[in-house]
Amino acid sequence: MRPVVVVHGGAGHIPSERAQNSSRGVCTAVRAGYQVLTAGGSSVEAVVEAVRLMEDDPHFNAGRGSVLTAGGQVEMDALVMDGRDLSSGAVSAVSNIKNPVKLARLIMDKTSHVCLTAGGALQFARQMAVEEVSTESLITDYSRERWRKNLQPGADPVQCQMGKMGTVGAVAVDADGHVACATSTGGILNKMEGRVGDTPCIGSGGYADDSVGAVSTTGHGEAIMKVVLARHILFHMEQGRSVEEASDLGLSHMRSRVSGLGGVVTVDTKGAWSARFSSNQMAWAAACDQTLHWGIYKGEEFTEKIG
Amino acid sequence: MRPVVVVHGGAGHIPSERAQNSSRGVCTAVRAGYQVLTAGGSSVEAVVEAVRLMEDDPHFNAGRGSVLTAGGQVEMDALVMDGRDLSSGAVSAVSNIKNPVKLARLIMDKTSHVCLTAGGALQFARQMAVEEVSTESLITDYSRERWRKNLQPGADPVQCQMGKMGTVGAVAVDADGHVACATSTGGILNKMEGRVGDTPCIGSGGYADDSVGAVSTTGHGEAIMKVVLARHILFHMEQGRSVEEASDLGLSHMRSRVSGLGGVVTVDTKGAWSARFSSNQMAWAAACDQTLHWGIYKGEEFTEKIG
Repeated sequence: MRPVVVVHGGAGHIPSERAQNSSRGVCTAVRAGYQVLTAGGSSVEAVVEAVRLMEDDPHFNAGRGSVLTAGGQVEMDALVMDGRDLSSGAVSAVSNIKNPVKLARLIMDKTSHVCLTAGGALQFARQMAVEEVSTESLITDYSRERWRKNLQPGADPVQCQMGKMGTVGAVAVDADGHVACATSTGGILNKMEGRVGDTPCIGSGGYADDSVGAVSTTGHGEAIMKVVLARHILFHMEQGRSVEEASDLGLSHMRSRVSGLGGVVTVDTKGAWSARFSSNQMAWAAACDQTLHWGIYKGEEFTEKIG
Repeated sequence: MRPVVVVHGGAGHIPSERAQNSSRGVCTAVRAGYQVLTAGGSSVEAVVEAVRLMEDDPHFNAGRGSVLTAGGQVEMDALVMDGRDLSSGAVSAVSNIKNPVKLARLIMDKTSHVCLTAGGALQFARQMAVEEVSTESLITDYSRERWRKNLQPGADPVQCQMGKMGTVGAVAVDADGHVACATSTGGILNKMEGRVGDTPCIGSGGYADDSVGAVSTTGHGEAIMKVVLARHILFHMEQGRSVEEASDLGLSHMRSRVSGLGGVVTVDTKGAWSARFSSNQMAWAAACDQTLHWGIYKGEEFTEKIG
């Protein structure tokens, strides 16, 4: 089995001055995930490591760099899922956590639950000695400026959001043929306090099942939830569709049924992979067969040997 | 189109001394939902009214009568979904709200979001002047006694939970052929603070789509989430399975893949309905063609004309 990892850094309209940083970030993340896999690590370890790096990268809307709520706070969601037995861990509306994806993994590994929210999640994080950080350290100048802009009369946060959906995610299949997914986000720009999007919702923000494959999603969270996008795509794969066909069918269903745009990265258990999006752009990268692939605009694909 | 409404009052082992109250409660709820439909109301109105009544009934694990968290608190989850356009509203980990299902409906109707959690949900509830109540008023002697019992050494909350999973839910199809679902719960006995189960997770706790039908689920929340049970059942219906076959396929997939037990109520857009469960019992009731149907043990079905 050839190991494969595919990541995305969010679907939407990526301003040209940010495109280079986004591409650099997804390539760094996918290389790290691939290194985990080629060193014999599991798909869960690979997706968590790739997502952790993108949470730490201020150019993405997850961890440091998260968009702000209407009240100027940071509230993050994350999900991880293990295709072997469908084990899952998720957090919603957590603040002051450096890496929500690591907290999600601890919920999967150390509790009998699947999802913890808000104060309860923080309480568990403290029991596990998960790294806490100040809200300030998670906020970039760019996030604050966009938050201020959206408080002005006549602002349209949804329109502005298209400039930085920026949820991050990863899917992987390891040498043993096990699949996993992880997704992490700061949510939607100027969202109401307590708003939970698709990311921590199993089947919407991601899904992984060794009998089919794995998907991680990005885009308009409310639309993704309404069509349970990740699970929807895997159902098409169960019906015999390729990763690419299934991803496109899911995205076009979301567009026609609820007028939603987004993007997905998908793998099947044989190592076929795709990165597809209905938005204008999506920063993505993939690694397999010692080759790095990446792109950001429709139809674009660069490749480079991994030395 | 003949209107139909089906409700459940939770899957699990229902102690005999509580069986009569459970049956009475689901019959009262389904009659109220049916009255909404026969008076020309929508399927959304019918499911919200049926679930509201079961939240107010102390014999169910939702609203008043909710099970307690490990710390002795009440944290409730709820979901409502409209099959016309997949509009959805959900709340997770809310306290001090008399009827979480009504708050979920307000989120669907009055915000651009789908789900609000914890403090943010309460903040919105106050803006909407939703009825707040004391924690004490939501706690019954029965809930407190079972909470205490589960704090003792050697207690097994999961085993004990089987005595009162008790999530409540409803599905309906109205005279115009529109479907809807609603689900509400106090969650799992002695859960960690902040634990979010399947109920507010679209596709797990319920799903409604006018192109197929509607499902509301109950049972072991973590297992339901891992298989995205409601959406799974509707996929089988899209493949041509009857409501009964699809429900059984979904429940047996959950049993074999993640060793989970539960139950579901299901309708399709033609008015076919079913109430199926893999647990020992599930309190359920249905109303259509001026006839009330109800049961609690496997194979049991009583009927009575609605006067």
